[in-house]
Amino acid sequence: MDDSSEDVTDGNTEYGRKAFKRSRSHFTDRVTADGAASGWPVEPGRYRLVVSRACPWASRALISRRLLGLEGALSLGVTDPIQDDRSWRFTLDPDGRDPVLGIRFLSEAYDARETGYPGGVSVPALVDTVSGKLVSNDFQQLTLDLATEWTALHRDDAPDLYPEPLRAQIDEVAEGIYRDVNNGVYRAGFATAQEEYEQAYADVFRRLDLVSERLAGRRYLVGDTITEADIRLFTTLVRFDAVYHGHFKCNRNKLTEDPVLWAYLRDLYQTPGFGDTVDFDHIKRHYYAVHTGINPTSIVPAGPAMDGWRTPHHREQLGGRPFGDGTPPGPPPAAERIPEGHRP
Amino acid sequence: MDDSSEDVTDGNTEYGRKAFKRSRSHFTDRVTADGAASGWPVEPGRYRLVVSRACPWASRALISRRLLGLEGALSLGVTDPIQDDRSWRFTLDPDGRDPVLGIRFLSEAYDARETGYPGGVSVPALVDTVSGKLVSNDFQQLTLDLATEWTALHRDDAPDLYPEPLRAQIDEVAEGIYRDVNNGVYRAGFATAQEEYEQAYADVFRRLDLVSERLAGRRYLVGDTITEADIRLFTTLVRFDAVYHGHFKCNRNKLTEDPVLWAYLRDLYQTPGFGDTVDFDHIKRHYYAVHTGINPTSIVPAGPAMDGWRTPHHREQLGGRPFGDGTPPGPPPAAERIPEGHRP
Repeated sequence: MDDSSEDVTDGNTEYGRKAFKRSRSHFTDRVTADGAASGWPVEPGRYRLVVSRACPWASRALISRRLLGLEGALSLGVTDPIQDDRSWRFTLDPDGRDPVLGIRFLSEAYDARETGYPGGVSVPALVDTVSGKLVSNDFQQLTLDLATEWTALHRDDAPDLYPEPLRAQIDEVAEGIYRDVNNGVYRAGFATAQEEYEQAYADVFRRLDLVSERLAGRRYLVGDTITEADIRLFTTLVRFDAVYHGHFKCNRNKLTEDPVLWAYLRDLYQTPGFGDTVDFDHIKRHYYAVHTGINPTSIVPAGPAMDGWRTPHHREQLGGRPFGDGTPPGPPPAAERIPEGHRP
Repeated sequence: MDDSSEDVTDGNTEYGRKAFKRSRSHFTDRVTADGAASGWPVEPGRYRLVVSRACPWASRALISRRLLGLEGALSLGVTDPIQDDRSWRFTLDPDGRDPVLGIRFLSEAYDARETGYPGGVSVPALVDTVSGKLVSNDFQQLTLDLATEWTALHRDDAPDLYPEPLRAQIDEVAEGIYRDVNNGVYRAGFATAQEEYEQAYADVFRRLDLVSERLAGRRYLVGDTITEADIRLFTTLVRFDAVYHGHFKCNRNKLTEDPVLWAYLRDLYQTPGFGDTVDFDHIKRHYYAVHTGINPTSIVPAGPAMDGWRTPHHREQLGGRPFGDGTPPGPPPAAERIPEGHRP
């Protein structure tokens, strides 16, 4: 997710004066099991995942990394939720430098990869710690590779987040959700004309209604376990009431007003590897402070009230096996715990 | 309510770069029963009430006029919900002129009263049709006078909206609600600094919680009938989810999430004289289109969903006599009916 002030991009989003359009990731190298074709072999400790906890696209990788137990093999850099005119920065780290990469701005890894790259700087970013070069900012491929190429480094009993027999179904479900929900909320929020906004709003809620209907009788989107599809839906739903409802004008209803989606969201939120990656302070401050084109005061709303996130959801009554033949991950590393006050 | 673009005022609101401050009404003449002291005697057909249906301050007078049956005696001019740089305008009327006053802008009545008046043009405005002069824009006094000075012109069986024995109590309740809720939402919405906003937000919800507690066991705010206090609270509550929740960042919760306030609001909304004055199209378009300082795109949210406004509220179980010894008003004059599509 990236936001330059004039031509703002979020996870490869570009929006300016014309209709909002998400651009394709520019750096699409892949880290693969043997690295034969890509030149980037999976190696413990070699790569660094740079995210903003504010960003739904980056948060997919945060969750996959946790569920698969890759914390030891793939280290994590967390940027300040507020970009400046040089984009994402490591101002949360001592001396404002990422302690592993030694850089102050994520753009330095982009520059190391391609001099004078004119596009936006986005997260998630996978960076090679040896050369300091950006490997990939391809948020769509990244989590799939974590699930399928990084298997040698997965923890014992890691779940299969992209099971072979379900891939076509996962891709299909995720595609509609991407277009109408993950990206739909941005199309609504960054619309510059009433009609464009209303179309996006209609898409968001039509799709959410379909998803709600689908989830009424089944615990997860595809199969009976947590998959990539749930991760992608979760990162939008978890932000919905806090930022998309008001800031992006997706305000037909709050998610808490949809009993099915709210229970589904709480179920995942309470599942190790999901809620423990979510920093509501970063989420709210990022969206409201950075998008001055739609919130010129940069004032961050004090609401919504966060009651209920830890209340019973009763979704286990629908059956399902969250981690399939695997097990839940343990708690996050101490350094990665979400501070009190940043979570419900 | 008035909004000039630089120094915006709403119902005698002024907000600029400093902390939001509502200014006192400038024109505070009163129309009184005999006119002896004021020079403005109550007379059927002589005065015109100019309102915007968007404006909560003006809407108080709309409701009082309906409840008291003053529609025949005090005619009504309704402005376009969107002001231009000359402020409130009669663009909803044929040829863009108020058919009684013959003016295109409300400011012309202000000019007739005081040449070169430098303040904002606000509604409600009581205008003398004989001289074309503004009599009063004093929204705090206007409804009290309709209730107590215009009695000779009230319909038969009109309620007593400001009963003598309850006045002190009404004034006290209304004062806290004014400061923290009626005006508090504006302080939140037009805050230019985070701290100022958070203080206003805290005030809004602290007071709403007190009001909710008070109304849990009693149907109306003071006594057992509808009074001025309820009218003043209603005009803010009815706008709350549609504009204050998102646009003014009063988003701890929607009113629909507070069972007591939501039932109280529905009760009043369904009472003749209240809901039949409310135009949600005017409300939403005004706030979102005019306040470009906080909504630069002027895009009007499609939500919230308006289900439930006509569902049973069960508040009659609390007892109370809505109109006391009086009766409800009949339906509004045909010309004043809220168009379909502008109401739930």
